[in-house]
Formats: sequence, C-alpha cells, structure tokens
Amino acid sequence: MKKVGLIMGSNSDLPTVQKAAEVLDSFGVPYEMHIYSAHRTPVQARDFCTSARDRGFGVIIAAAGMAAHLAGAMAAGTTLPVIGIPLSSAHLDGMDALLSTVQMPSGIPVATVAIDGAKNAAILAVEILALGDEELTEKLEAFRAKGTEEALEKDRALSRSYPL
Amino acid sequence: MKKVGLIMGSNSDLPTVQKAAEVLDSFGVPYEMHIYSAHRTPVQARDFCTSARDRGFGVIIAAAGMAAHLAGAMAAGTTLPVIGIPLSSAHLDGMDALLSTVQMPSGIPVATVAIDGAKNAAILAVEILALGDEELTEKLEAFRAKGTEEALEKDRALSRSYPL
Amino acid sequence: MKKVGLIMGSNSDLPTVQKAAEVLDSFGVPYEMHIYSAHRTPVQARDFCTSARDRGFGVIIAAAGMAAHLAGAMAAGTTLPVIGIPLSSAHLDGMDALLSTVQMPSGIPVATVAIDGAKNAAILAVEILALGDEELTEKLEAFRAKGTEEALEKDRALSRSYPL
Amino acid sequence: MKKVGLIMGSNSDLPTVQKAAEVLDSFGVPYEMHIYSAHRTPVQARDFCTSARDRGFGVIIAAAGMAAHLAGAMAAGTTLPVIGIPLSSAHLDGMDALLSTVQMPSGIPVATVAIDGAKNAAILAVEILALGDEELTEKLEAFRAKGTEEALEKDRALSRSYPL
Amino acid sequence: MKKVGLIMGSNSDLPTVQKAAEVLDSFGVPYEMHIYSAHRTPVQARDFCTSARDRGFGVIIAAAGMAAHLAGAMAAGTTLPVIGIPLSSAHLDGMDALLSTVQMPSGIPVATVAIDGAKNAAILAVEILALGDEELTEKLEAFRAKGTEEALEKDRALSRSYPL
Amino acid sequence: MKKVGLIMGSNSDLPTVQKAAEVLDSFGVPYEMHIYSAHRTPVQARDFCTSARDRGFGVIIAAAGMAAHLAGAMAAGTTLPVIGIPLSSAHLDGMDALLSTVQMPSGIPVATVAIDGAKNAAILAVEILALGDEELTEKLEAFRAKGTEEALEKDRALSRSYPL
Amino acid sequence: MKKVGLIMGSNSDLPTVQKAAEVLDSFGVPYEMHIYSAHRTPVQARDFCTSARDRGFGVIIAAAGMAAHLAGAMAAGTTLPVIGIPLSSAHLDGMDALLSTVQMPSGIPVATVAIDGAKNAAILAVEILALGDEELTEKLEAFRAKGTEEALEKDRALSRSYPL
Amino acid sequence: MKKVGLIMGSNSDLPTVQKAAEVLDSFGVPYEMHIYSAHRTPVQARDFCTSARDRGFGVIIAAAGMAAHLAGAMAAGTTLPVIGIPLSSAHLDGMDALLSTVQMPSGIPVATVAIDGAKNAAILAVEILALGDEELTEKLEAFRAKGTEEALEKDRALSRSYPL
Repeated sequence: MKKVGLIMGSNSDLPTVQKAAEVLDSFGVPYEMHIYSAHRTPVQARDFCTSARDRGFGVIIAAAGMAAHLAGAMAAGTTLPVIGIPLSSAHLDGMDALLSTVQMPSGIPVATVAIDGAKNAAILAVEILALGDEELTEKLEAFRAKGTEEALEKDRALSRSYPL
Repeated sequence: MKKVGLIMGSNSDLPTVQKAAEVLDSFGVPYEMHIYSAHRTPVQARDFCTSARDRGFGVIIAAAGMAAHLAGAMAAGTTLPVIGIPLSSAHLDGMDALLSTVQMPSGIPVATVAIDGAKNAAILAVEILALGDEELTEKLEAFRAKGTEEALEKDRALSRSYPL
Repeated sequence: MKKVGLIMGSNSDLPTVQKAAEVLDSFGVPYEMHIYSAHRTPVQARDFCTSARDRGFGVIIAAAGMAAHLAGAMAAGTTLPVIGIPLSSAHLDGMDALLSTVQMPSGIPVATVAIDGAKNAAILAVEILALGDEELTEKLEAFRAKGTEEALEKDRALSRSYPL
Repeated sequence: MKKVGLIMGSNSDLPTVQKAAEVLDSFGVPYEMHIYSAHRTPVQARDFCTSARDRGFGVIIAAAGMAAHLAGAMAAGTTLPVIGIPLSSAHLDGMDALLSTVQMPSGIPVATVAIDGAKNAAILAVEILALGDEELTEKLEAFRAKGTEEALEKDRALSRSYPL
Repeated sequence: MKKVGLIMGSNSDLPTVQKAAEVLDSFGVPYEMHIYSAHRTPVQARDFCTSARDRGFGVIIAAAGMAAHLAGAMAAGTTLPVIGIPLSSAHLDGMDALLSTVQMPSGIPVATVAIDGAKNAAILAVEILALGDEELTEKLEAFRAKGTEEALEKDRALSRSYPL
Repeated sequence: MKKVGLIMGSNSDLPTVQKAAEVLDSFGVPYEMHIYSAHRTPVQARDFCTSARDRGFGVIIAAAGMAAHLAGAMAAGTTLPVIGIPLSSAHLDGMDALLSTVQMPSGIPVATVAIDGAKNAAILAVEILALGDEELTEKLEAFRAKGTEEALEKDRALSRSYPL
Repeated sequence: MKKVGLIMGSNSDLPTVQKAAEVLDSFGVPYEMHIYSAHRTPVQARDFCTSARDRGFGVIIAAAGMAAHLAGAMAAGTTLPVIGIPLSSAHLDGMDALLSTVQMPSGIPVATVAIDGAKNAAILAVEILALGDEELTEKLEAFRAKGTEEALEKDRALSRSYPL
Repeated sequence: MKKVGLIMGSNSDLPTVQKAAEVLDSFGVPYEMHIYSAHRTPVQARDFCTSARDRGFGVIIAAAGMAAHLAGAMAAGTTLPVIGIPLSSAHLDGMDALLSTVQMPSGIPVATVAIDGAKNAAILAVEILALGDEELTEKLEAFRAKGTEEALEKDRALSRSYPL
C-alpha cells in the first residue's frame, strides 16, 4: 500500500498531528512522520516532496500554523495530492493559517481541512488511498457506519430522557 | 478510469464550474456534471453521492456559495473523497462559503480549495485519480512542467537589470 | 399544542441546548430532543424533518457548530419554520457556524439567533406557537413584563446620583 | 389571516424589501409596508410594534443596514415573532447589519435571515403564518415542490456524461 | 455643572462601567448611573434620553454589548452628545458591539470609543463638559500632564543603553 | 462661538469631508479646514492641535484612511474633544481606518463615527458646541425634527395595506 | 551600490510592482526584476535568494497575492532583509495575502508593507540601502522634505476659515 | 556599529519586547530601550526619531497595541528604517494593532512583522545592520544554520519514533 507522508512544521505541532497518526494506525495505513519547515528546513522539505512519489508515498499531509506555507511548499514539489491542516496558534485563532493554506494560486491545489482538523486530514488521506484498495474501502465504510451508530446511540440515550 | 462527479448548487454557478470541466477535458478524465442543491433537491443530491462509488465515480467535486452545504452533504453520503469549491456570491466575498465548506466536523472531511478555485479542484481530482494510473501521472507531470516553463518564459521576457 | 423539535448535532452541544429546553419547560411547551447530525446521521435527520409536520411539530430548533449544516438540512426537508442556533466551538468564536446557518440560499430560510443563543431560540419558538394560542401569548407577555420588571429592579438598586 | 408588517429603515431600502412584498403577494398574504427608523422615527416605530398584535399582525419583518437596530427595536415592543433582514450598505458588505441584527441579548430574539435576504424573510413569515392555516401550508408545499422541480429541470438540461 | 448620564444595558456591565464612574468622580463631575436596556426597558431608556437635557444632563454615556443598540437608542431621543462604549461579551471579542455602536446612520451620531473603553468614554465626556468650564479644563490639562509625567518616569526607570 | 477644526489627511479626502463642511455651514458654525498628515506633516499637525484651544477652537474633526493616525495624533496634543472619521480606501473597506481610529489607548479618547461618516461627525461637533449655546440647540432640535418629518413623509408616501 | 531584487509571483502583478520600480529608478538604485513563483518555479525562486547576497543584492522585495508564500520563501533562503508586498486579488481584498506574508514564524522575518504597497516597499528598500550611503540618505531626506512641502502646499490651497 | 532603538508604547509591553532585546544581546548589537507613546509622550517620541540618525541609530523598532500609532509616528520623523511590532491586547487578538501598523500611507513605510513578533523584529534589524558588516553577516548565517540544524535534529528524533 502507498504510504502517507505526515509532515508538521514544528515539533510543537505534534499533539494535534498525533490525532492524524492515530487514525492512520487504526486503518493500518503506513506513514512516515517528519518535522520539516518551509522556512527553517526548506531544502529537506523540498527533497521530501520531490522524491515522495518514487519513495512509495501516495498522499502528503502537511500541518502548519501562522503564515502556513508548508502544505503549499509540498504541493509545489509533487503532483501527489497534498492535504493541508491549518493549525491555530497564539493569535487569530488559525484564520491566518487557514487562508495561507487554502488560497493557493491556480495550478497547485492544496486539499484543505478544518483548523486543527488533523483527524479529518487522515480520513481524507485514507479515502484517497482507498480508491484502489477494496479492503481499505470496506474499513472506511465500517468506520463510517460505526460513527453513525454511535451518534444514533447517543440520540437514543438522550431522547429517552426528555422531556423529564 | 473512474469518473469525476462535478456538482454545482445552482446553474448560475456554471461559469465558474466550467473551468473545472475544461481541466478534466484536457486530461481526458470522464465526468458527469449535475446541478444538485443540498436545500432544493436534497433527495437527488443524496441519491447521487450514496450511489456514486457503485456507479464508477472516484471523486466528487461540489461547488456552492453562501451557506455552502453541498460538499458537506455529498461527503455525508459517501466515503469517496469529496472536493469542495467555496463560491463567492453577492456579499462577504466567499468567506461564508469558505467557512461553510472547510470547517467540517470530525469524521467527515471535505477537501477544500480556494474561493472560486474550480481549476484547482479539478487538478486535485486528477491528482487523486492519477494515484492508480501511470498515464494520468505522466500527464500531470507534463502539465506541471508546462506551467513551470510558461512562468520561466514570462520571467525571461520581463527580467533584466536596471538601470538599463 | 404543537411540539418543538429540539435537535443538536452532537451530545457535546447539550449544555448549551439545555437552556432552550428549560425555556420550553417553563412555558409548558412540549418538545422532543434529539441528536441528529447532517453529516453523521443524515438519513435520520432527514426522516425527522420530512415527517415533523405530520407528527405534530410546529417548529424545529437546530443547534450546530463549525460548518453548521444542521438547521439548513432541516429546513430543506420541511416547510415548518426552522430556527438555527450557531454554536461556538474551539476556533473562530462561532463565526463559522453563524455564517453557515444564516447565509441560506433563496427559497429555504433559517431563522437564525445569536451565537450560542439557545434561550432566544426557544423564546422565538414560543412566539411562533403563541400566534394561534391565547394562553401562550399571555404567558409570553407575562414573561416579558417580568424581564422588564427585573431590569427596572436592578436599575433601582444601582441608580443614584453622584457624588453622593 | 393575520397580516405581516413589512418595515424598512429608509426608502432607499425599497428595491431589496420589494422582493419580500412580491413573495407575500404571491402567497396572498396581507401586509402593511412602512418606513420606520429606530433612530429617526423611534416613536412611530415603537407605536407600530406595541400595537401590532392588536391590529391583526402576526409577524413583523424589519430590514435595516449599518448599525441595524430596527428589528431589535421592533422585537423590544412586541412578543410577535420579528424577522430581521440585515441590509448591505456602502461598506463592510452587510457584516455590520448582520451582527447588529442577529446578536440580540437574551430574552428578545430576532429571527435573522441572510444579508439582503428579503425573499427568505417573506418565506419564513409565510411558514410561521401557515402553522394555523392549512391552505397556506399547501401553497408552501407547492411552492417548495416547484422550486425542487425547477432545480431538477435545470439539472436535466445541463447534466450529461463527458466526454460526449 | 451639567451632569453625565452613565447608562449600561445590564448590571453585569458594572465592573467595566465602574471605571468611567471613577474618572468622573476624580474630576468632580456629577453623574447619574442607570441600568436601562434598549430591549428590556425601552420605555424607561426613551424617557431618560428625551428628558435628559431638561434634567440638567450635558452628555450621555451608554455601554452595551452584542447587538449594542443602547447608545443609538439614546441618541435617537436627544440632541445631547451621546458616547457609546462597545462592550465585549462571550463571543466575537466586542466586534459585534463595536459595529452596532459606531455604524450609525446619517443624522444620528454616536461618539464611539474603544471596546470596553469606559475610562476613555468618561474622559471624553469631561472634555466635552470642559468646553464651557475653565476649572474643568485646568483639571484636564493637569490630568494629561500627569499621564505624560508617569509615562516619562517609566521610561526613565527602564531606558538605558545596551550592552550595559 | 467656538470654531471647529476640520482636518483631513490628504486632499483626496475632500469629497467625503466636504459633507461635514456643508453641515457646519448649514448650522452657521465657523470652522477652519486643513490638510494635515500625521505622517507627512507631523509638525504642522502637532502645532495645530496644541494651539487649537487658544485659537478659539472647541472641537477638532480629523478624517483619515488606512492606518488612520490623524485623529489620535490630534487627540495627543489637545484636551479638546477630537472626533475621528475613519475613511474607506482601496482595500479593506475602511476596517483598517476604523480600528486605527477607535481603538485608542486609555487616557486619550477619540470620538469615532461611522466609516466615511463625515456628516455625523459634523452633527456631533454641533451637538458638543450646542451645550453652551441655546440658539444652536434650537437649530439642532429643528434639524432633528425635520429629519423625523421627512422620514414620516416618506412613510406616508409608501405605506399602505396590501393587497390593495 | 547593492542591488534590489524585485520579484513578483506572476506577470499579472506587474502593474502594481511597477510602482516600486519607478521609485527605485527615481533614487538611482539598481535592481533586477523577476517573475518567480514559490509554487510554479520554486527551484528558480530558491536559486535566486540563496545566491542573492553573493550576486550583489542588498534587499529583496517580493510581491504576491492569495496564499502569498513568495516573500517567506525568499526569506527562507537568505539572511538579506526581505520585504513583502501583499497583493490584493479577486477575493478577500488582500487580507489573505497580508496574513500569509506578515505572520511569519519565529526566526525568519518578512518586512511587510501595506496591501498593494509597492511604492512603500521600494522606499523601505532605499532606507535600508541608505544606511551605508550618505548620498542616498540625502536623496531620501530630500524626497521626504518634498513630500512634506507638497502636502503643505495642498493645505495652503485648501485651508481657510469659514464662513468666508 | 549603528545602534537599534527599541521603543515600546507602555511598560506593560516589556515582557514581549524583552524577546527582541535578547536577540540583539545575542548578536552583540547595541541598543537603547525606551517607553515612548505616540499619545502620552508625543514630544519625546518625536524628539527620539528626529535625532535618531545623528545619535548613531541605524534602525528603530517600535512595539504598540490597539490603535498602534507608535511605529508610524517614528517613521514620520526619520528616514531610518522603522520596524513595527503589532502587539496583541485584551481584544481583537492584535488585528487592530496589525492594521494600524502595516497599512501606512504612501511615502512613509513601516516594516511590519507578525503580531507579538518581537524576536523576528530584532532579527530583521540585525539583517539590516549586517548589510555593511561582514562579521554580523556571519553571525546571522550561523544563527540561521543553527535554527536549521535544531529543526533537523527534532525531525530525526521524531521520525525515528513513528510508526511505533
């Protein structure tokens, strides 16, 4: 199976990005996790994305905050799908990272998820990899069905209780 | 090859969405184009996404403005990757559609592109479909190389040292 | 008396939505409370709204955060008045939910109240149901008069001329 | 049938508010149209809302721009449901009017629709009045079905598989 | 000397508004403090402003949060200068109150100060009252000079050349 | 009568500021109009405000766009009331000027009016000057009454019951 | 004298960037103008900044819109001062480019000027280069004095006391 | 070596501005630290900037919050490069200070860094001073290389650990 590259701009991003890793683990999807910065280690970031397809990656997830250039820098160096996670930071509640990630110029898309949406980034990566993989598709369908069932169970627990 | 579902919320969205169709045409990627609304035709929108995988679709692109629920509604009915195009409308410059599209709750991702970013939505769809398709990958690489070459050509035409 | 459907997207929304339930209780207005998600349980959400009028509902209140599609999804399936409560979440202070709820396209309105405005959503529902119900109208008038009197009492406790 | 009060803050708002009047006309719902300003004619605005229930009104729609206090001022003087239309003006694209209309304090709700959403305000008013009126409910259902049918017709005209 | 009317929309606003009272106390400017709400006690709010000039008031300060209509409602009922303090509340950091206070329509101004800027509202009121009052002008000049001297003292304590 | 200082940051601001001059003319309030910039002519701007009280000014109105420092710079040099008009410019719709004008630090208030609200700035100045001037107060009351009457006349022209 | 690198992300940016070139021309500061994109020509962009110091550049100005990564990418490859011009584009009025340019992470600054502020970017570059260049400093002082004189001239043309 | 002027608007800004001082210390760059306010001590602020070049300063860094005029006021009085640090304060998360600092009018630039970006302001100052100083340039290159090496070390530590 193709691997997911799970890249963050700083090790302080790990608590959020960790949630993506857990999703990938739960689906049995292989991944490599790295700290690369579009600004502090641009050479290594570039090397990663330009060689990613040949090294067996199918999707790259990039998480960064503030002037979040990481996902865009990744997308500039590969034609693999790149998923961007805008991270919230000390100010502006992630709006800076959201706009820096999603407003990519024509020609180089970044598939952007919600602010701090690491879990959804991983699910999206699995959805993409599942296109050529029936077993993964089944896992996804089961995961979705489980989410639905859990929500329904919560509804049943609540709607029994009201009105008092 | 798997097809792309190219869905818009209203026929007034066609001039923007058309740019996605042109990209898909240029890559030879088959697609179906539809007008479905999460609010006006929710049953048909739902039928489309729940049957999309079985009908041979690989990716769904959904474009909508204002309280742009279309991509989210699509994503709720399939585990195929769903790409959302937030469309600008008469007010707020597309910020309402951007937030309505990208801020999806945990479990159901939408791969969001820039406001009115129809071209990038299509390129992202092609990137996803190209994962299992060497020929499409080569086309993508050629497309990217052509974009680079055009930019360099523009630089050569402009760049010089001043004063002359 | 017609019932109020009090729907929230997640059980984590209960502390806020609870305030709407308390208002309905205080007016003696019957209601059903449910957890339905436009994304996780779209079928059940749809079933609820399409059958709501026949099942004796007069108003639906829907509370959701982030890309808050729940109220819009409800409104798409009924011609009953639908009241939307945009909920604040971890980021953006509820602005995403506000725009996702209020900026509905032409044809399908959602009556939107303030961010986290659960109490006002319930009062609005009571105002709507009171149109055909003199007793409820009297309760509303008394409720309003009590609010005025409490405010005046606070003014009397505070107000004085300075310097003393 | 109860009447709708259709109030605007300035005669320059008429082109937008007119769309609400047309919807009410099409449903055969009686209404009175007025220019009242929370700031220029507060006495008349107050007189209107405090006497509205006794004069046979069932819903008040108030449209205003900028620091849009009109809907809130109406709501302060009646327990009838009040619908607010935030109007866009020369600056800020209606965001000032939206926040001034929707962010009402606890106890006095305003049912807010989209920026310049006059048509939806009228539909919401009809939905409210239709609660006690079977004929109006049927008209609403027919109106909704027509909207759905028109959308489907547009889809049929557009949709096809590509390449042709 | 003319009095200042110091009005707040809710008793929960007192901790912020108190700072205005302290400034007025320090200048020996007489004032009345009230809790009046544009929505909960509109009649009393209106009575206050329409009679304010005759009752010896020279300036009205009005503090309110969210859809902050209080200052505008005051301004609608008097030609005395009205100063608005937009108060921050649970969401949106006071931006809703700022726009609701400052974006007044043509003809009825509100002199708006910073979010939660109670102290500046009082200083502005003193500046206005000092126009016809030499003693108050001198106090203002002394107050300003003291502020300057305190800032300079802080600079002297901090400033030095580095490296030491 | 005390004069109004009517200051703008650039001669391109004249079309907007002109509306303030017309209001002052209509009330017979004397004024001086100047182009001073907090950035291009800071010395002259400073000289103006520090000498304004002695030169017979009672109020200063300052209009500026973008990083609108002019009103704040005026306020730093006088204890006269300073009114700020945030001007819209090519980008951001005046939001930059609004925040730069209204968010003054504690101790130095600026009485801020709406974006491009030149007319209201002048009315506010007249309200301030009218405190010690019965004749001006009567003109203000007449002006307000005329505004009310005009609005009522527009209501009479428009209002009717429908269907006709 | 050291040169200025004047880089833009797309040839459509030329009309705005041209204003920076004109300022540099007027000061006799040598420069090279290029079209490099952080996304379309990342290799060439990187080559430019990493070799810029050795090739005699003293300052780099980078202009880009939307998710404006260009200035940040330049800054990542050099320790020369990098000036960023956030460009407005079809949506969001340049706010996306502003945040993408200014909100750089710790360690890699970008000196950001106003949205579309090409002229100021060039003046800032001249100010930087003038630190080691007395003649350039004198030109700057003359330029500033001329700006002041022009503003004063405009004031003299406009200013007068009213009524005339 | 030329000195850096490190100016803040209030002594409460010291904890943030201190980080700039530490960077300058680490590079051995001399500086003076002051508390000057554009509003409370405009005369001293003006004296500082107009004499700064003659007193041996090469760069001025100015940090202020809210209606942050300090950097602009500095820039108005010198042709030295002025770096602005927009400081976050109680409300609006620094957006008011960012716009007040960066949106300078044509002719008077302020080199703006990120909200609370004191460290980057100092690095930028060092980059500017290093233009005429080989030793400082080498220190900068070493500082940058160290930042890169630290980031790579964090990557090595992390990427060893996953997948578990």
